[in-house]
Amino acid sequence: SEEFDPKEHQHLRYNPLRDSWVLVSAHRMKRPWAGQVEKPPEEHIPRHDPHNPLCPGNARANGEVNPDYESTFVFPNDFPALQPDAPSPGTDQHPLFQSKSAQGVCKVMCFHPWSDVTLPLMKKEEVVRVIDKWADLIQELGATYPWVQIFENKGAMMGCSNPHPHCQVWASNFLPNEPAVADRCQREYYQKHGEPLLLHYATQEARRKERVVVESSDWLAVVPYWATWPYQTLLLPRRHVLRLTDLTEKERLDLADIMKRLLTKYDNLFEVSFPYSMGWHGAPTGPHLAADASHWQLHAHYYPPLLRSAAVRKFMVGYEMLALEQRDLTPEQAAEKLRNLPDVHYKTITT
Amino acid sequence: SEEFDPKEHQHLRYNPLRDSWVLVSAHRMKRPWAGQVEKPPEEHIPRHDPHNPLCPGNARANGEVNPDYESTFVFPNDFPALQPDAPSPGTDQHPLFQSKSAQGVCKVMCFHPWSDVTLPLMKKEEVVRVIDKWADLIQELGATYPWVQIFENKGAMMGCSNPHPHCQVWASNFLPNEPAVADRCQREYYQKHGEPLLLHYATQEARRKERVVVESSDWLAVVPYWATWPYQTLLLPRRHVLRLTDLTEKERLDLADIMKRLLTKYDNLFEVSFPYSMGWHGAPTGPHLAADASHWQLHAHYYPPLLRSAAVRKFMVGYEMLALEQRDLTPEQAAEKLRNLPDVHYKTITT
Ligand SMILES: O=P(O)(O)O[C@H]1O[C@H](CO)[C@@H](O)[C@H](O)[C@H]1O
Ligand SMILES: O=P(O)(O)O[C@H]1O[C@H](CO)[C@@H](O)[C@H](O)[C@H]1O
Repeated sequence: SEEFDPKEHQHLRYNPLRDSWVLVSAHRMKRPWAGQVEKPPEEHIPRHDPHNPLCPGNARANGEVNPDYESTFVFPNDFPALQPDAPSPGTDQHPLFQSKSAQGVCKVMCFHPWSDVTLPLMKKEEVVRVIDKWADLIQELGATYPWVQIFENKGAMMGCSNPHPHCQVWASNFLPNEPAVADRCQREYYQKHGEPLLLHYATQEARRKERVVVESSDWLAVVPYWATWPYQTLLLPRRHVLRLTDLTEKERLDLADIMKRLLTKYDNLFEVSFPYSMGWHGAPTGPHLAADASHWQLHAHYYPPLLRSAAVRKFMVGYEMLALEQRDLTPEQAAEKLRNLPDVHYKTITT
Repeated sequence: SEEFDPKEHQHLRYNPLRDSWVLVSAHRMKRPWAGQVEKPPEEHIPRHDPHNPLCPGNARANGEVNPDYESTFVFPNDFPALQPDAPSPGTDQHPLFQSKSAQGVCKVMCFHPWSDVTLPLMKKEEVVRVIDKWADLIQELGATYPWVQIFENKGAMMGCSNPHPHCQVWASNFLPNEPAVADRCQREYYQKHGEPLLLHYATQEARRKERVVVESSDWLAVVPYWATWPYQTLLLPRRHVLRLTDLTEKERLDLADIMKRLLTKYDNLFEVSFPYSMGWHGAPTGPHLAADASHWQLHAHYYPPLLRSAAVRKFMVGYEMLALEQRDLTPEQAAEKLRNLPDVHYKTITT
């Protein structure tokens, strides 16, 4: 019988962080695309737009005026999905109509005073300040809240409604679905193997090399073996680190560097400001700070939607929503493409 | 303290079919939308396009010519994600690099010879033929395959690349993630309560009324208590039914009728051909046909992306991908809006 070739023969791969499977059907890349094409992202963003509520010195929806900030700037989300004082829903006795209290805070964090930069185009020192601020927010909100989700939606394709470089931080009085599953999976792995899942994984990937995109002394970015999005990556420290707050100064510098390199490759792939959603997962906080969290390893997920070009994305629709996620190129093919791209951003090349 | 109002106060709701939670933050509807707007769907689709590979009498990618079909038409997907003869991946001994064989077939099913109709605009008898064909496919492919996923991606926004009314059928030698979770949840509920989860649920919803969109003697469509997409619905039989193949002739007629009514309301909501992904979940097939599946109840999920208008969708991005899904209106508000819409399609009203 024919020899198995992952690029030619569909197969399932297991995601040990989510206890789920992904269908890899790389031969599907051959099919022509006659579906929706995306508008390329706006390329001419003014450095300062007097009407943009995220710019320094401008007024926001609630009338407050932003300071003339020169680095990062954190403020409360004016339309928060989580508020600290929401009353609890009553209890319905029926098992099919269960609700729970949800309380928390939502903040917005600008990365830079200028609207026309993105993380890969910012100076390394500027990115370090973003990382420091992330750690500060985990420290501050994690003092009481069990989960603090830092995430960035980049690009209109990812529902981002403001081109100014920023991320969001939503802290909640509950452990959301995704981290709850990641907690369970890492715990079970640790109990069985005596080593944190993602530390074990990073060591393996650094050795196997085929899915590595960028690496440095303290960090590693790979297209995970179980990636669902075409160019999804997983950013991992090489040392056992529970939370952003635990990173040393050297590790933060190194993180700024590897983030810039990863995001530069992303932008260079289709010569476009690469849309994505990204976020950090670390050990739970608040009441969990007192518990043993040795099974946890800090990591960031990058979920970019583009598949074939700046205009053609992957749709996670019918089969993906109702059955399981399917991808159209192997993680190894995606990693190789990204790895071979220049480390210099296409926008900084002067011709 | 303030009294709880689901429209004003965020809270979590439990999805017993997926063992997960959704964050309901209905007050978020008040925020202005400055993000991406979608192109409205093409309104002028020719009845017959000589270049459309789904139309009767036209050639497809592989050179084959479609018959002059007059009702439904099923043919093999020319770019299948699942093929019957893919060799198995070798086994890696490492627990973090696990793969599995994936084999199956992918078919496409046209609903009607005309490109300019959709299910709500088709005659009831024509929709019955679609339902009969679905049941035939479950019968035929389910004879050997453990899972047969029938799904429809409708509209360019849902990655659909062809306006001709059609759905897809992917049969696999494995139980995919979503039905595997639904199987576990229904089984556990049945063991605990001695009644099928969704039969119990339908009875409750028919009594409570506030989430009902349309109902008939044999069927019920509700915005489920745990809906994540803004106008998501769940279509349920009132009787205990395991699979599409088990539906009586009367139940099929009634299903055609309720589908037309539900989809008419969808189209009437924003006076646009409403995009969605939908699909059927019934008891597993193939080797599972011999096992007891009393915990299962047949159902269809409709996942439509639109939120505010024909041009503004809900983005399931950052927080949703990394933490948990969040919705901007309550399921009761969505159900009420849909319920109050006319049963006559906006396109058939002659002025
Ligand atoms: O098979 P199609 O319609 O070309 O493709 C569409 O549906 C598939 C199944 O839901 C998805 O995997 C694709 O991303 C989507 O574009
Ligand atoms: O808060 P924003 O940026 O206005 O909104 C965006 O991110 C949120 C969190 O991921 C999502 O719930 C919204 O659907 C999306 O449009």
